[in-house]
Amino acid sequence: MRAEILCVGSELLLGQIIDTNAAWLAQNLSRLGVDVHRKQTVGDNLERIADCIRASLSRADVLIITGGLGPTNDDLTREAIALALDAPLEFHENLAVELRAFFQARNIPLGDTILRQAYLPQGASALPNSNGTAPGVHALTDEKHIFATPGVPREMKAMFNLSIAPAILETLGEGRQIIVSRVLRTTGIGESMLAEPLEDILTSSTNPTAAPLLFGNTEVHLRLTAKARDEAEANILLDELETKIRARAGEHIFGVDDETLAAVVIREMRARGLTLAVAESVTGGLISQMLTDVPGASEVLKCAFVTYTNEAKSGVLFIPQSDLETHGAVSAQTASAMAFSAQFAIGADIAISTTGEAGPTSQSGEPVGTIWIGLAHDGEPQIFQRELSGDRDAIRRRAGMHALNVLRLHLQKL
Amino acid sequence: MRAEILCVGSELLLGQIIDTNAAWLAQNLSRLGVDVHRKQTVGDNLERIADCIRASLSRADVLIITGGLGPTNDDLTREAIALALDAPLEFHENLAVELRAFFQARNIPLGDTILRQAYLPQGASALPNSNGTAPGVHALTDEKHIFATPGVPREMKAMFNLSIAPAILETLGEGRQIIVSRVLRTTGIGESMLAEPLEDILTSSTNPTAAPLLFGNTEVHLRLTAKARDEAEANILLDELETKIRARAGEHIFGVDDETLAAVVIREMRARGLTLAVAESVTGGLISQMLTDVPGASEVLKCAFVTYTNEAKSGVLFIPQSDLETHGAVSAQTASAMAFSAQFAIGADIAISTTGEAGPTSQSGEPVGTIWIGLAHDGEPQIFQRELSGDRDAIRRRAGMHALNVLRLHLQKL
Repeated sequence: MRAEILCVGSELLLGQIIDTNAAWLAQNLSRLGVDVHRKQTVGDNLERIADCIRASLSRADVLIITGGLGPTNDDLTREAIALALDAPLEFHENLAVELRAFFQARNIPLGDTILRQAYLPQGASALPNSNGTAPGVHALTDEKHIFATPGVPREMKAMFNLSIAPAILETLGEGRQIIVSRVLRTTGIGESMLAEPLEDILTSSTNPTAAPLLFGNTEVHLRLTAKARDEAEANILLDELETKIRARAGEHIFGVDDETLAAVVIREMRARGLTLAVAESVTGGLISQMLTDVPGASEVLKCAFVTYTNEAKSGVLFIPQSDLETHGAVSAQTASAMAFSAQFAIGADIAISTTGEAGPTSQSGEPVGTIWIGLAHDGEPQIFQRELSGDRDAIRRRAGMHALNVLRLHLQKL
Repeated sequence: MRAEILCVGSELLLGQIIDTNAAWLAQNLSRLGVDVHRKQTVGDNLERIADCIRASLSRADVLIITGGLGPTNDDLTREAIALALDAPLEFHENLAVELRAFFQARNIPLGDTILRQAYLPQGASALPNSNGTAPGVHALTDEKHIFATPGVPREMKAMFNLSIAPAILETLGEGRQIIVSRVLRTTGIGESMLAEPLEDILTSSTNPTAAPLLFGNTEVHLRLTAKARDEAEANILLDELETKIRARAGEHIFGVDDETLAAVVIREMRARGLTLAVAESVTGGLISQMLTDVPGASEVLKCAFVTYTNEAKSGVLFIPQSDLETHGAVSAQTASAMAFSAQFAIGADIAISTTGEAGPTSQSGEPVGTIWIGLAHDGEPQIFQRELSGDRDAIRRRAGMHALNVLRLHLQKL
């Protein structure tokens, strides 16, 4: 079964909004075993939308349209389907009743144009909208399906899950194959360094396949993708491949799918009953922001000190001004003293610290990208150095992830 | 002049990567006065790419293709252009010389497939790549232009600015109209509240137009768009409209175009020679991360305390445990004490603080979304309360922006 996606809306075409619907739809169609062959975006122009619909129907079995179902005059998807199928629009009293009830319940006056949403092309049926007013459209012509959903992501996703996916599965019937993906997340290692010891696995695996992919500035993901008759069978295939990959590169993998590094660190600290203090210079609050993004972080993170100036390093963390002058703020000694002081100041089990030079020009005299990380647990703090590349934002984010990863690897050894 | 955009790559089609190139290209083409009529995305399949190219050339004057120019066997854009134009690929020794030099300079062995990038369809010319190895392609057929760039955003953007935009401007010649946009950024106010006093301006302005647009979870942007013969004329139109809007809603506008709220705060503090301390609870480091994102922040931000637990509030900021118990951590009194202590601890001119309940479930007993902001400058700290909606991430980000906005408005009154 071949699918195409058509996104309708001048704001998408002009780049004023980044389209995330198409990516979500493509991922979810491929989970159903449906291949997406083409995505198109077109503005709010009746003839052009209808042209796209006709062309897609000449190539594909399923066309999913998002956007252009609202109440205003530039919402033209209903009209365009009618034009492409040569089927007149018909008024549906039951849809009008629902629309009126929706607005009455909320005490909102019913605008003049709202009832445009009660029209459907002849022969088409409405798809319920559990998160808004505009019903979707389902038309079937020559065994080809057209599904139209609103452009609001929340409404589109609910409509896909509730109505479109079941209709597609029914059409596919038995013998269909589903596609299930799993992402193994790594940090602190480049794409080619990670791929090298896995080369034979990456090139020879066909089901599941495995491919490395950069994610943001800070992670490399290994994406495993299996085809199977059902989820259970796919997961067996994915488990086998994951085991093989972990045997060679396991230490770099911090999490799976949606697990963030901060969430893994919080979970591992909680499991061991350990508390944390953070002293940040170059990362300027990024590490504590990542940690406090995780619900329940307060059980682990006692306090973070963003000592961005030398004055704060000496005044708040009691690092002698003379030491800062002798060694420099960007130094192993400063990172060590920051971690030690933060741990002591709040009585945490473990402390991590960062100091470094993020640029754009060097304020410290050290090369841009130089990072020192301190980790205090028992005894003398451990020190780690990294030379990072990228712009100011990338260096700061990479430094924050390196520090959390240092902590993760330390926890694994306990 | 009509343009279409074609994005090549199975990873885009399958939604594994969100495409940002097309939006950027559409914005920048519209700045040149070129209308984008359609965007398409297709996988790494020779026939399908060639089909898309042929169809676009039948409709548009300019086709911009991104992706598929790399060295590997699934990079098929060069071959697809050759197929669509029925023009054989030809080897260009000068391109091969450049490729070899690039790799020799970096001591990287020249892979077998790199020299695929030295081929061009007959009659086409190469576009220099200032940020990578793959040259772009420019082909002209029946007065229609095809431009192909790599998919890496950095390489694509440089190639567009250096080669494609000048070629398009030359083709357009005199009499062209350019489109210039300006964004007025606001925070702390909803879209409809902002639009209400501006309603007549928003509906009656045709050149420039003005439209409100949500940006992330924390800002509403007013996008002004003018058509004119040149940038200077457009800017006069934009200035006039901006003046009218500022007369009615000026206090909500914190910045223009790429200015972030944190950058505006740092700039205004520096201009007044003032220093800042931050005490964060609910925002957990977010405010100091936003501030330290700005180069030169160290001249303003002396120190931030992320006192996420009561233990840190009492141990580090010396707020008596009994006060925390009496008033609760999420209270006006705690916000006030945090700001006062942070200001005093590091000797800053001004301090801001946040405490609140971000959820997902209430730990403090206060309703999720309750936020208190403290601002200490001269005399007793000022206190501000906000009731924010959204998920944990949205509440935290909105709280951080509200706190910075409180500080911005305070600075304006000095």
